[in-house]
Amino acid sequence: MFKNAWILTINEQMEQFPNGYILVDGEKILDVGAMDSLPCDITYDQCIDAKGAILLPGMVNTHTHIGMIPFRSLGDDYPDRLHRFLFPLENECMNEQLAYTSAKYAIAEMQLAGVTTFFDMYYFEQQLAEAAEEMHSRSILAETVIDTVTVDVPEPMGGLQYAQRFLPKWQGNSRIQASVAPHAPYSNTMEVLQQADALSRKYNVPWMMHVSEMDFEMEKYRKEHNQSPIEFLEEIGVLSPRLIAAHCIHLSDHDIEVLKQYDVKVAHCIGANTKSAKGVARVRDLLAAGVTVGLGTDGPSSGNTLDLFSQMRLFANFHKTFLQDRSAFPAEEIVKLATYEGAKVLGMEKHIGSIESGKQADFILVETDSVNMFPIFDPYSALVYSANAGNVRDVFIAGKQVVAGKKLVDYDEVQLRAELAEAMEQCGFKEKALKALSEK
Amino acid sequence: MFKNAWILTINEQMEQFPNGYILVDGEKILDVGAMDSLPCDITYDQCIDAKGAILLPGMVNTHTHIGMIPFRSLGDDYPDRLHRFLFPLENECMNEQLAYTSAKYAIAEMQLAGVTTFFDMYYFEQQLAEAAEEMHSRSILAETVIDTVTVDVPEPMGGLQYAQRFLPKWQGNSRIQASVAPHAPYSNTMEVLQQADALSRKYNVPWMMHVSEMDFEMEKYRKEHNQSPIEFLEEIGVLSPRLIAAHCIHLSDHDIEVLKQYDVKVAHCIGANTKSAKGVARVRDLLAAGVTVGLGTDGPSSGNTLDLFSQMRLFANFHKTFLQDRSAFPAEEIVKLATYEGAKVLGMEKHIGSIESGKQADFILVETDSVNMFPIFDPYSALVYSANAGNVRDVFIAGKQVVAGKKLVDYDEVQLRAELAEAMEQCGFKEKALKALSEK
Repeated sequence: MFKNAWILTINEQMEQFPNGYILVDGEKILDVGAMDSLPCDITYDQCIDAKGAILLPGMVNTHTHIGMIPFRSLGDDYPDRLHRFLFPLENECMNEQLAYTSAKYAIAEMQLAGVTTFFDMYYFEQQLAEAAEEMHSRSILAETVIDTVTVDVPEPMGGLQYAQRFLPKWQGNSRIQASVAPHAPYSNTMEVLQQADALSRKYNVPWMMHVSEMDFEMEKYRKEHNQSPIEFLEEIGVLSPRLIAAHCIHLSDHDIEVLKQYDVKVAHCIGANTKSAKGVARVRDLLAAGVTVGLGTDGPSSGNTLDLFSQMRLFANFHKTFLQDRSAFPAEEIVKLATYEGAKVLGMEKHIGSIESGKQADFILVETDSVNMFPIFDPYSALVYSANAGNVRDVFIAGKQVVAGKKLVDYDEVQLRAELAEAMEQCGFKEKALKALSEK
Repeated sequence: MFKNAWILTINEQMEQFPNGYILVDGEKILDVGAMDSLPCDITYDQCIDAKGAILLPGMVNTHTHIGMIPFRSLGDDYPDRLHRFLFPLENECMNEQLAYTSAKYAIAEMQLAGVTTFFDMYYFEQQLAEAAEEMHSRSILAETVIDTVTVDVPEPMGGLQYAQRFLPKWQGNSRIQASVAPHAPYSNTMEVLQQADALSRKYNVPWMMHVSEMDFEMEKYRKEHNQSPIEFLEEIGVLSPRLIAAHCIHLSDHDIEVLKQYDVKVAHCIGANTKSAKGVARVRDLLAAGVTVGLGTDGPSSGNTLDLFSQMRLFANFHKTFLQDRSAFPAEEIVKLATYEGAKVLGMEKHIGSIESGKQADFILVETDSVNMFPIFDPYSALVYSANAGNVRDVFIAGKQVVAGKKLVDYDEVQLRAELAEAMEQCGFKEKALKALSEK
């Protein structure tokens, strides 16, 4: 039982309880309401006074690459950073141990920032899923498929076979789902995309792909097929409500209709898209058409931080400016995108994404004692425009507290960092990265 | 003496000492360098090991309104918020006590976020200057002049007479300067603008005005004078290196030439400008022309937070996207805008803005222990893309420590908030704000 919190339920009516309580039983939310309607006959083992804190559903990061922490702050402003830094270092250094320690670090960072659920695509996803399981995270881990040899498979597009072995292993797990993520339409054959879709259908899990992100991608499909990538994907029959299309920066009106028609979900990464000068996706048009959109940070080398507070603020400012309308996307809508809509993108809206009786107890408390959090006339405004990741105080996933008083409950940040630094040292990552930088 | 810090000097050569020391004597920096060049014959009273921290010049917030903390999170997404919330509440409630307690709170927030110097424009600037003096801040406080009755003067443009009394009072103060700030060209007479300029010349202090911020402002000057606001200001003879033009969102090529010709400074507020969907100022063109530009947060009701970390990240993403060039404004340049260039905007670059022997000891330490701050291949990238205000650990102004271990040294945050809340209560601010919100 938590009492006296400012509860944002993010339910269908966007109900708030400025002085509310929440009752949790095991993994689930038993009840939520205003303090003055607290039933008299309730008994509870533990009662926490959350006075002053904002309580909301755990945030959902719909697109990230948790194995990539080692790359953060490396070559941020280089136009050719992928080929100059990322690919060579990945090929030379990335291994099971580095991906696993990076994943644990990234999950810790997300939990400390109030992200309780995420969708990951990278390599060594079996190890990443183990990391997520250990850290009591709720997530979908998807093995990347791409037409080159990668760090964990010896042949091009071998990620598909990896995924075929990987998906059945996690069947029936209550919090972890295994999936598959073709890198992009242009970096896979049609057959591989169809097989990935079939795999997702067989195991009934969402799958993911980077779609309509790159200028060259748009040009290629226009030139070779006189189509957009989305029209191409429709033609080959892989669009469905199970597909999460990441980025979708370049969309025609027709693309938006097609996305709606097949109920394809969109993972929108405003921070990474604008840092790389790729553009601003047409989110208002997507939502107006009825497409489900969630927020994502992208990986730590593209979006840098893995929290959704920075994304929410960037989202507000970019979309208002892009639409030339300061009233576009009021803060309330943005908080909904970061929570409930994200859950919907991942197909989990029946279980998480709002504070409602019977749902999983995935929620966070944001403290309002810090100097940036006063006054609060509108808690949504405070979350979008004033808060940062450091204001997250407590985090619960499936009823279990993973962050208490801004600290991990079962892990030690210093230890996680030391393990990651050690893994980076062992494979020569740091040394090679500094060498690449010195050759700039 | 601080040792083992990663020192970013922001001197002309943008020298860094990845393992450096800084020696402070009284108000001034005595010496800075690499640890391995530390002179043997140096003695010091106190030696602090700053291992792992990034040490850089204190940040300079070139445009804010510190009396406006009470308005934060009030009506953020309303197109008519000025007239619906801000002006009525200001008229009904703003008083000396509220402005003063708000100023102390705002200064505390800035110091905790690593802002050591700011330029303020609001009302009751005598009280605000006293608040700044008490809190050992370095700042310029400028009384607003506008063609209406205001909360501190009984006649339109009475701020000018206020300023005439106010400026001499602070002459010779080593850290506090008093100044004058006509609200905008369109909200003052030509004579008032000329008198404000004369006042600034007489006391040799920078003065400030909102310029080329509003669509209607641009239309008005085009229609009535067939000029831009900047061309109009040139014609009436008020442009000089002492003028700081805030915002400058709408600039022609000729405007940029004029700004350069008179060495007018620009306070660029990316967060406030884009949150209000006003647009993105042509900062690359301004810098290419040789105009000095600094960063500003604007007031807490426009920019919400008063730290420059959020501004730096918004700056990077907006300008890269606006210019369609991911290599535009590397992180290093942005950190320079937030420090040295800001000092130059305020005419203080001989005394602050870089870590150099003989300069004032205004510097900050940003810790790198938090989960968002690893790894760091480039400290500038880490500051722009990874850090938030909560990572600032220690802050020094004129050799005096004002923040230690993320806490104010001489003040209690809880107490400052209680005083502000009390002042908001007394004047009925909170009640009236909630009433206005409920009438939406």
